Amino acid sequence: MLSDIQIAQQAELKPIGEIAEKLGIPGKYVIPYGHTKAKIDLKYYSEIKDRPDGKLILVTATTPTPAGEGKTTTTIGLTQALVKLGKKAMLCLREPSLGPCFGVKGGAAGGGYSQVLPMEDINLHFTGDIHAVSTAHNLLAAMLDNHLQQGNELGIDPRRITFRRVVDMNDRALRNIVIGLGGKAHGIPRESGFDISVSSEIMAILCLATDLQDLKERLGNIVVGYTWTGEKVTARDLKAHGAMAALLKDAINPNLVQTIEHVPAFVHGGPFANIAHGTNSIVATKMALKLTDYTVVEAGFAADLGAEKFMDIVCRKAGFSPSAVVLVTTVRALKMHGGVPKDELGKENLEALEKGAENLEAHIDILKKFGVPVVVALNRFTTDTDAEIQKVHEAARRHGATIALSEVWAKGGEGGIELAKAVLEALDKPCGYRPLYELELPLREKIETIAREVYGADGVDYTPAAESTLKELEANGYGNLPVCMAKTQMSISDDPAKKGRPKGYRITVREVRLSAGAGFIVPICGSIMTMPGLPKKPAAEIIDIDENGNILNLF
Amino acid sequence: MLSDIQIAQQAELKPIGEIAEKLGIPGKYVIPYGHTKAKIDLKYYSEIKDRPDGKLILVTATTPTPAGEGKTTTTIGLTQALVKLGKKAMLCLREPSLGPCFGVKGGAAGGGYSQVLPMEDINLHFTGDIHAVSTAHNLLAAMLDNHLQQGNELGIDPRRITFRRVVDMNDRALRNIVIGLGGKAHGIPRESGFDISVSSEIMAILCLATDLQDLKERLGNIVVGYTWTGEKVTARDLKAHGAMAALLKDAINPNLVQTIEHVPAFVHGGPFANIAHGTNSIVATKMALKLTDYTVVEAGFAADLGAEKFMDIVCRKAGFSPSAVVLVTTVRALKMHGGVPKDELGKENLEALEKGAENLEAHIDILKKFGVPVVVALNRFTTDTDAEIQKVHEAARRHGATIALSEVWAKGGEGGIELAKAVLEALDKPCGYRPLYELELPLREKIETIAREVYGADGVDYTPAAESTLKELEANGYGNLPVCMAKTQMSISDDPAKKGRPKGYRITVREVRLSAGAGFIVPICGSIMTMPGLPKKPAAEIIDIDENGNILNLF
Repeated sequence: MLSDIQIAQQAELKPIGEIAEKLGIPGKYVIPYGHTKAKIDLKYYSEIKDRPDGKLILVTATTPTPAGEGKTTTTIGLTQALVKLGKKAMLCLREPSLGPCFGVKGGAAGGGYSQVLPMEDINLHFTGDIHAVSTAHNLLAAMLDNHLQQGNELGIDPRRITFRRVVDMNDRALRNIVIGLGGKAHGIPRESGFDISVSSEIMAILCLATDLQDLKERLGNIVVGYTWTGEKVTARDLKAHGAMAALLKDAINPNLVQTIEHVPAFVHGGPFANIAHGTNSIVATKMALKLTDYTVVEAGFAADLGAEKFMDIVCRKAGFSPSAVVLVTTVRALKMHGGVPKDELGKENLEALEKGAENLEAHIDILKKFGVPVVVALNRFTTDTDAEIQKVHEAARRHGATIALSEVWAKGGEGGIELAKAVLEALDKPCGYRPLYELELPLREKIETIAREVYGADGVDYTPAAESTLKELEANGYGNLPVCMAKTQMSISDDPAKKGRPKGYRITVREVRLSAGAGFIVPICGSIMTMPGLPKKPAAEIIDIDENGNILNLF
Repeated sequence: MLSDIQIAQQAELKPIGEIAEKLGIPGKYVIPYGHTKAKIDLKYYSEIKDRPDGKLILVTATTPTPAGEGKTTTTIGLTQALVKLGKKAMLCLREPSLGPCFGVKGGAAGGGYSQVLPMEDINLHFTGDIHAVSTAHNLLAAMLDNHLQQGNELGIDPRRITFRRVVDMNDRALRNIVIGLGGKAHGIPRESGFDISVSSEIMAILCLATDLQDLKERLGNIVVGYTWTGEKVTARDLKAHGAMAALLKDAINPNLVQTIEHVPAFVHGGPFANIAHGTNSIVATKMALKLTDYTVVEAGFAADLGAEKFMDIVCRKAGFSPSAVVLVTTVRALKMHGGVPKDELGKENLEALEKGAENLEAHIDILKKFGVPVVVALNRFTTDTDAEIQKVHEAARRHGATIALSEVWAKGGEGGIELAKAVLEALDKPCGYRPLYELELPLREKIETIAREVYGADGVDYTPAAESTLKELEANGYGNLPVCMAKTQMSISDDPAKKGRPKGYRITVREVRLSAGAGFIVPICGSIMTMPGLPKKPAAEIIDIDENGNILNLF
């Protein structure tokens, strides 16, 4: 069997100009990056903004397990299938972070015959967006420490600086560091650290901004720390936001690539789905909705995280109204939720599946609260038995979702026809998208609504620190922001060990952070890793390049 | 008077495909980055490698002063003038580091009507080469600390790790840091720090590599530290070089842009000229020599640094044979060397000029040792008097150089006609390029040859540490490498206060470093800054972007 990169390297790509032309984008707005990647100038949007929007389809998944669900692959395969059915469709994905490619994870551009290409470029530097985010972030950090060094006119308390630095690398040794050592000429010593670039608030801002001026305003709003007297200090106070916006002037233009079947795809922006909202840029989705009749968008992690945030934060901000949600799952993943260890997933186990299917049911119930029809995509593996597949069908239907088998990894768009037809049917159903909570509610009520309605928790406990931060934020005028819950993706609850559909528990908000630039409050439930490490045998040890410049072993 | 960025933004650029076509480069080798930048696929070189080389002209300068010499501007203007005279010519420049743009320095893409364009892009992310260097560098650093964390099989002594991390930012607070804090899961605590990306050994390697395989081998040779028993540890030992080369697969392709007069320019690679060799990539220059009859290349700092290294390291490695050297100077700079403070440079001062002209004479004498004809380019300012210009002419001629006035900042190529004619005449002279020393000499003799012949020093003193490192390097088989002197650029000596032509002094080698990947030994004379800081009022505070996406105040 061929690996993803081998399949990718055998594919014949069309010139990206041809893909853009088929979308009707005039050549002057197509900014090429090599022959198979392009940025589309955001100025083009003003030319098409009065067109009606196409239908918006969100792809989410059940709670992640080590067995994998194939969410990105399904997003790509579904769109390929819609095109095979004669529809005008495109998809929007997040762009992968380069750092994790060298760890365990490998690429994040789909798989098999449902990939976005060129996968090596997309997984490595791509069009430089993440490098631009890192640079803008680290410029602000450098200006902040320079402000301390040059006399600290604003009176910033070095112990209350919340803004760290970033690098697009898995580098655990940078998590906790002391900087500014070496004497008077070399800065003010203080504790700090690095996070991975995609966890930067600037990535969230890039994905939520509607244009360059909005981007600049939001960058200016970033709170970097507090003064000795407890006043907030922003990027604007440091006069950094103009230069930061200048560094992001190209990054804000959506990246156009193609799938292995030449279907157009915007791959743009990649915020975390815990401390941030976890979907590609608003500008890419907005443009896609004007360019085609069907836009398929993927959200990060499972429905309790990425989909909830897409509905409550992104759609509200951008004015999107999704018409259907596709919920990706696999028999194997649900069996893991039912307690089967990874090396026994090949054997039929109806009892475990019955139990694990509760996770699927929970996610269907979550999605129904947003008023949008749900289609379950059962991503089929060769080891799945007919009885198992039957069981998943029953669970889905019992909770009011339609369900279709998907074999897009092995068969590309052809393997997604059944799913595409089910989605098209769902689009005909009455749909009344609505967010879960009103922004005017107090912050605690917003948090508690999500905890009860989405996570199925009995209630929320707060540490004293979290409680006082919430009060402070409301007093400072941030009470009307949406909440962006940061919790484990490994469970619907805040405890990664609780599989399936956890019940009879309370969640604990340990800390609350402000992302004033992105425009949300982040209640932290449990420890969130914002700087991964490398494993004992990093993938980097075998990634290589041959004499012809082909990259080897990038999975 | 218009600023550089205003002049740049008023210029009409030709599509980069047109520039490449005029050079005869087939479209399939032209990799566009937007409409006015492209990378030229290195594979193209194998198609043209049997063509005869054009003439190679090196541009260097007198010792830098705060008055500026306009070396880059002259390089661009001279090439424009050659084209105006009907010659087929192009130029090669280093690419500027993004970090310093936000400090005091502003851009580094020439000035006035002798600029390479688009200047904003070239000064900011350009085609991502420096980001690729940073990433490859920091991948190796992360793999190194991960090796310690995962059991330290190689027995690396954490106190003897020489490899630091990099960021393309002026950030003094990162010069001296302690990493790996926070407990067992977060690395091994140790002292380290960040340098600016362009000072990375990987930048030097990128610029000295002749192809992708050579690049990978050299990356593997990087020495990152030593074991508890004193054995060297390389990037190859950490199995990092394959993945690092994969990260640099695009960066190794030369970047093609155009000057304001549509003359083709390779802007590719930007190593330091103290701890590294200070000229653009060998691959760019090699390709340029096959594409045109005249290739103009700029070397960093003055002739004692960039030109010496170009002659002794780059030409020897690449097999280049320069046919003429242009030595850029100004009346103002020479007056500063004669003791005039910056705010009195507008007044005629023949006595100070006479004294300061010794610096010019010293550089002519240095360049003559390499057997190549020297043309002095006197970059004219409106405050220069006829008598002053006359004096510089006399000094140049007394030392066997021809001299020509240059007004390329204000007039573009037209202002460089006199200079171009003088260069063409020099190219007709007998030329016998030779490096200054034989590689087979002991390291100390190589250092002492440069000190005497280039710096005019009476001799060299070594600290005990430097002496023992030199012995160790020779014992380990590194004795045949060239030496890459790291000293101040502000004086021909190792003391920045010694202006003009210092005499009767000895230099001190305080420390010796090994750049085994780049392939040279770095004797350090004095303190070398590899991480700049930001000034009290950083340029970043006024850099901005308008509603149309135009960058403002990037000088």
